[in-house]
Amino acid sequence: MITASSNKTAPRRLRLGMVGGGKGAFIGAVHRLAARMDDRYELVAGALSSKPDIARASAQELFIDPDRSYDSFTEMAKREAARPDGMDVCAIVTPNHLHFPAAMAMLDAGIHVICDKPLCLDLAEAEKLAAKVAQTGLLFALTHNYTAYPMVREARDMVHGGKLGTIRLVQVEYPQGWMATRVEDTDNKQAHWRADPAQAGMGGALGDIGTHAHNLACFVSGLEPHELCADLSRMVEGRVLDDNVQILLRYKNGARGMLWASQVAIGHENGLRLRVYGDKGSLEWAQEHPNHLHFRPLAGQPRLLTRNGPGIGSAGLHGVRVPSGHPEGYLEGFANLYSDFADQLCARLNDTPPPAASLLVPGIAEGVKGMRFVEAVVASSQRGAVWTML
Amino acid sequence: MITASSNKTAPRRLRLGMVGGGKGAFIGAVHRLAARMDDRYELVAGALSSKPDIARASAQELFIDPDRSYDSFTEMAKREAARPDGMDVCAIVTPNHLHFPAAMAMLDAGIHVICDKPLCLDLAEAEKLAAKVAQTGLLFALTHNYTAYPMVREARDMVHGGKLGTIRLVQVEYPQGWMATRVEDTDNKQAHWRADPAQAGMGGALGDIGTHAHNLACFVSGLEPHELCADLSRMVEGRVLDDNVQILLRYKNGARGMLWASQVAIGHENGLRLRVYGDKGSLEWAQEHPNHLHFRPLAGQPRLLTRNGPGIGSAGLHGVRVPSGHPEGYLEGFANLYSDFADQLCARLNDTPPPAASLLVPGIAEGVKGMRFVEAVVASSQRGAVWTML
Amino acid sequence: MITASSNKTAPRRLRLGMVGGGKGAFIGAVHRLAARMDDRYELVAGALSSKPDIARASAQELFIDPDRSYDSFTEMAKREAARPDGMDVCAIVTPNHLHFPAAMAMLDAGIHVICDKPLCLDLAEAEKLAAKVAQTGLLFALTHNYTAYPMVREARDMVHGGKLGTIRLVQVEYPQGWMATRVEDTDNKQAHWRADPAQAGMGGALGDIGTHAHNLACFVSGLEPHELCADLSRMVEGRVLDDNVQILLRYKNGARGMLWASQVAIGHENGLRLRVYGDKGSLEWAQEHPNHLHFRPLAGQPRLLTRNGPGIGSAGLHGVRVPSGHPEGYLEGFANLYSDFADQLCARLNDTPPPAASLLVPGIAEGVKGMRFVEAVVASSQRGAVWTML
Amino acid sequence: MITASSNKTAPRRLRLGMVGGGKGAFIGAVHRLAARMDDRYELVAGALSSKPDIARASAQELFIDPDRSYDSFTEMAKREAARPDGMDVCAIVTPNHLHFPAAMAMLDAGIHVICDKPLCLDLAEAEKLAAKVAQTGLLFALTHNYTAYPMVREARDMVHGGKLGTIRLVQVEYPQGWMATRVEDTDNKQAHWRADPAQAGMGGALGDIGTHAHNLACFVSGLEPHELCADLSRMVEGRVLDDNVQILLRYKNGARGMLWASQVAIGHENGLRLRVYGDKGSLEWAQEHPNHLHFRPLAGQPRLLTRNGPGIGSAGLHGVRVPSGHPEGYLEGFANLYSDFADQLCARLNDTPPPAASLLVPGIAEGVKGMRFVEAVVASSQRGAVWTML
Repeated sequence: MITASSNKTAPRRLRLGMVGGGKGAFIGAVHRLAARMDDRYELVAGALSSKPDIARASAQELFIDPDRSYDSFTEMAKREAARPDGMDVCAIVTPNHLHFPAAMAMLDAGIHVICDKPLCLDLAEAEKLAAKVAQTGLLFALTHNYTAYPMVREARDMVHGGKLGTIRLVQVEYPQGWMATRVEDTDNKQAHWRADPAQAGMGGALGDIGTHAHNLACFVSGLEPHELCADLSRMVEGRVLDDNVQILLRYKNGARGMLWASQVAIGHENGLRLRVYGDKGSLEWAQEHPNHLHFRPLAGQPRLLTRNGPGIGSAGLHGVRVPSGHPEGYLEGFANLYSDFADQLCARLNDTPPPAASLLVPGIAEGVKGMRFVEAVVASSQRGAVWTML
Repeated sequence: MITASSNKTAPRRLRLGMVGGGKGAFIGAVHRLAARMDDRYELVAGALSSKPDIARASAQELFIDPDRSYDSFTEMAKREAARPDGMDVCAIVTPNHLHFPAAMAMLDAGIHVICDKPLCLDLAEAEKLAAKVAQTGLLFALTHNYTAYPMVREARDMVHGGKLGTIRLVQVEYPQGWMATRVEDTDNKQAHWRADPAQAGMGGALGDIGTHAHNLACFVSGLEPHELCADLSRMVEGRVLDDNVQILLRYKNGARGMLWASQVAIGHENGLRLRVYGDKGSLEWAQEHPNHLHFRPLAGQPRLLTRNGPGIGSAGLHGVRVPSGHPEGYLEGFANLYSDFADQLCARLNDTPPPAASLLVPGIAEGVKGMRFVEAVVASSQRGAVWTML
Repeated sequence: MITASSNKTAPRRLRLGMVGGGKGAFIGAVHRLAARMDDRYELVAGALSSKPDIARASAQELFIDPDRSYDSFTEMAKREAARPDGMDVCAIVTPNHLHFPAAMAMLDAGIHVICDKPLCLDLAEAEKLAAKVAQTGLLFALTHNYTAYPMVREARDMVHGGKLGTIRLVQVEYPQGWMATRVEDTDNKQAHWRADPAQAGMGGALGDIGTHAHNLACFVSGLEPHELCADLSRMVEGRVLDDNVQILLRYKNGARGMLWASQVAIGHENGLRLRVYGDKGSLEWAQEHPNHLHFRPLAGQPRLLTRNGPGIGSAGLHGVRVPSGHPEGYLEGFANLYSDFADQLCARLNDTPPPAASLLVPGIAEGVKGMRFVEAVVASSQRGAVWTML
Repeated sequence: MITASSNKTAPRRLRLGMVGGGKGAFIGAVHRLAARMDDRYELVAGALSSKPDIARASAQELFIDPDRSYDSFTEMAKREAARPDGMDVCAIVTPNHLHFPAAMAMLDAGIHVICDKPLCLDLAEAEKLAAKVAQTGLLFALTHNYTAYPMVREARDMVHGGKLGTIRLVQVEYPQGWMATRVEDTDNKQAHWRADPAQAGMGGALGDIGTHAHNLACFVSGLEPHELCADLSRMVEGRVLDDNVQILLRYKNGARGMLWASQVAIGHENGLRLRVYGDKGSLEWAQEHPNHLHFRPLAGQPRLLTRNGPGIGSAGLHGVRVPSGHPEGYLEGFANLYSDFADQLCARLNDTPPPAASLLVPGIAEGVKGMRFVEAVVASSQRGAVWTML
């Protein structure tokens, strides 16, 4: 029996499988590291590449038993489901177009899923997945990892606790510069598939980072826009998908917002930044300095909140590993999702209620919302950047 | 005779008059300080308030000869024009609705004008003023003061010199928080007239700071948007004019932009910030740290350019008073406009060509563009935030 | 009659003379600009250069009556003292070695003095000056200008008000990099005299900027070290005076401190920075961002105090000219000294008590302390960096 | 056989044991996480606490075989050495006073050692350990973890490559504020042993963080001071060991330095910051923003170097896990030491030469230097802060 409350008394690690993430991949290694961080998982199986030799060599490097290195995710789903020590949960870390079939295969085999974002290629797929999750009752995590930084959790909690009053403005941006030239024509594997509609879906910067920005803004503000006006651009000659996204947002309560995501904003590395303004104060958080959160109260002095520092509440302390001033970063944030999801999984295995904090992990609902957002943005932009309901 | 090239050999200071700026006003004192900074002007006359006793008391405090303290700008224009030592130039620092009549009065009297922004109430007034300026041949300065910070001049010069390549993105914002509550109901004189359409015109945040943001973006980028989609909001209950402005911008060359101006963004003091991205690099400048300019070249390391520091060219050195590391601020930037305009005026008085740098002072043309911008934004927003040609 | 309380009702400007500050000088222009900023002074006389032709040409550029441009400060002192409209006060802006004779000449002639720092060449001179000031009863200002930034005033007030508790640590540094090479061998006039003991005195970096750092630390902390251990270095080959100063400090109450001043710290422009730590909190202020003050309370969240922003008391509001977010800089800080001293002078002329804030202007006492500091540092260093009483 | 070059083809993880680090400890968890980060180690044995029940409970939580949870490190050393699958290497994460006996026990048993800093209690112990390491030929790592941040490696490489020219100044500081009150009287276990000379040794702040600062300064600058003048203070009433360290440093080449470490500097969390100045440029790195390195060349513009960003060389790219803009932090830096040491260990096991980068891990020599530094500082301070040879 696995005790849900904490890994401290868990008698075993959760058994993790992985689809994608073989040699040369980026996000797969991040998922593995995130899974390993708090020692809640062991990697036991993989369909790490669609090329069998790469799959096998990758598995060997990762100390995966050769018997559990598979040539396809369908095979893996079937065979792992049949094992008494089969994997508990499968991480899907392929390019976007494979999220849907891989996730469906796992769910059909009774295996819980951790899926990289964006959820899939379109809203139709998303709704099929949601229906499957509902029908199977399996657990599903979507790795919008930026929601799991402690100071993002603290920010969300402050908004929900009324520290900002009524929200008036949500300004979010996610500029990057790495695709300012035709990098997809080089041997950059990451750029290559992101620039290819067949693998990436209908959104370029939109799907890759715009969905992160949208998700983060909703997560912290507690608000979802109901209407948007979006202008998608292709700044680099010959590119098929958008590399720059500019959106005006309207919220039902009268709040307004702007979202900017770009892959051609030279000088930015991974510049996700969120500012939320209410009638009592504002918050600012930037991914590149994730241990800091700026709170600026109405008529008061701006305050710097630091991870694990003075005045941080339980929301912000959750998932913290080291003292204030010892910076945690991207991998720790990502790992928080894995560890929270481990809490969900252990609770399920033990038939106990999951701890509340673990339920903040984005799931299938956020995936559906993300796809709805992508479709609305594309529709708005294609019709000339007109207002479109979400 | 006045020699234009520099004040160093000017035999006299220019004679300055002022409309508005009596006790309790804000921007009038700034203009006077800016005029005094480089000792190019002496304040000789004033119609400092529409209330005669305030006008007189204010003049006395400012060492203005009581004979040259006037009860109205029309009287001042007439009588100063008749004096052999009459004022050379008049600064207009009233609320917006008086800019037009005061400027017309001065121009009709043959007096050069320095006018606070925005130029006037609407495009029709602006075009009449432009026609009058053209007809009289008089000089006209519009105090979009942010264009005169040395690092803004350097930024503009870098763009024009091709350091950024072809411009793709112009992101400008001007958040303030001081009107996040109904401050216009208090005794805050600045808030009172800014919230009153009769005095401020058709734009609230739009006219007051949106025009600054627009002007700065055009000044540095060298581009003017030809189409915009604007969403004006009133976040504070009962307010008549907009206090939040969000705009998508399109440029003829395919570039895109966003403009955000707000008076309800709690936590911001005077957060004008401009970012311009080309295909070879980007620039970032923030008004609250005006001695710094960030240049981020494609595939290179970000560089910090400092006022009067290494590598600054003649555009950025113009107007610099003290060594690098000795911060100059808002008043020095404002003073640069006055001193540059003094160069124009001296050249005119001496019938010599003005130095090139002096011609960067925003003038009547920028005022007309600003009014066209305001009208387009209001039109776009009123029709539901639809794309509108500029 | 001059009313002391404010310039608002002063019937005339104070008459200012100047020794030094002719063409090519740096600090003289700063003094003039500071005097002009708030319109409290008019420059009426000058002995602007020891070279008569430069003195005359400089005076002409500055609109000084040719009759009041003098070839020597002794002549100026004598003749101005004899005029019914003679100057009220004289600014001394020469290299250090002339401070003493020029100040003595003015005091002997009954003229108040504003003297640039450091006060003079050694403690003996300083004490003679102090005796003369005491004997004549004249007013004396020493332009340790960094004490007059509003946020420095606020910092001092917070310390004095107990916000930091008992002071434990005073860490001050003043790194510059402009003398990292033998710039005194170029045509850099500023470097030339600063590197020459005959003109600069016994301290290089020590006298030029070390005294500023020392003065600022004492001004804000309210503490004076009673013992120090100093290591002076000459990092640039062939230089006679120190270009790097490192000091350990001890205070009577058990507090400790460190002072570092350097002219060879490449990458720093004018990096004066003070940190003061008590048992209840700490403060940090940096000259290059003078509108900000960081307050970090024990067990609380760090707070950003901004010039004219929320929570600033009367000490920090004194001398403020423009709203928060509109940066003031070096010249405004310098001007605050001039305007405060104008308050002292007007009070004297009107035989009224000076306003309390005006008495914060550093004076002859601070000058004596500065010279005592310089001598103690040199003595400590020459004996091998041993502990030396102040 | 284990191949040294990389874990990519290592057939097994290294077997790690641990002394100390049971429930409630801090640094033990950090070591375990660092060991796990790159999947190079598995934790197989432990003497996790001197209290048997805590040792056992802690082992269970960490999935350690109960048979390999030991009540003492002597027992662990003996029994693990006797196993065919015995541990390869032992991490020692106890309070300082146990480092020496635990390390000696492991070395005597033929087990490689990873030891937390500072090495031990005094120089005599350090030299005995060094002799033992030399005699046994075993590998020894000392976790001065700050040396393993990628940007610290880059900084060191830039200095060594001559980018800064001849070094003139080394300014290092390590302020913390967490011991500004008598926190050792609370249930804060970390404070308790650090304030106790029997467990911590002769240095308080000196041993805990001063040694880190010293080590980092030497690592990056490539210079070791040969003489120092140190003033140790106890700012908190009743504390036995120093909580504030201020030191002047002299280097053989004429360079100078200052070192400040404090546990009572309220407002600082973990403020380790190093600045190195040469005659061609300077570097600045701050632990709280470890992904950034500031390079300021003589007469050039300051440049921001970012982890994995433009222009980073192989030294700085070593150990990097995620793209630029995705912050890595304290744990990743710590893990780099573990992974580099894994390279050393694998090379040893395979009898191949270790990769050059792996040899940058601080070892026994750095431990001896650290103890020599501590003794010199204490001696200097006790004699009244006089200059003392290192």
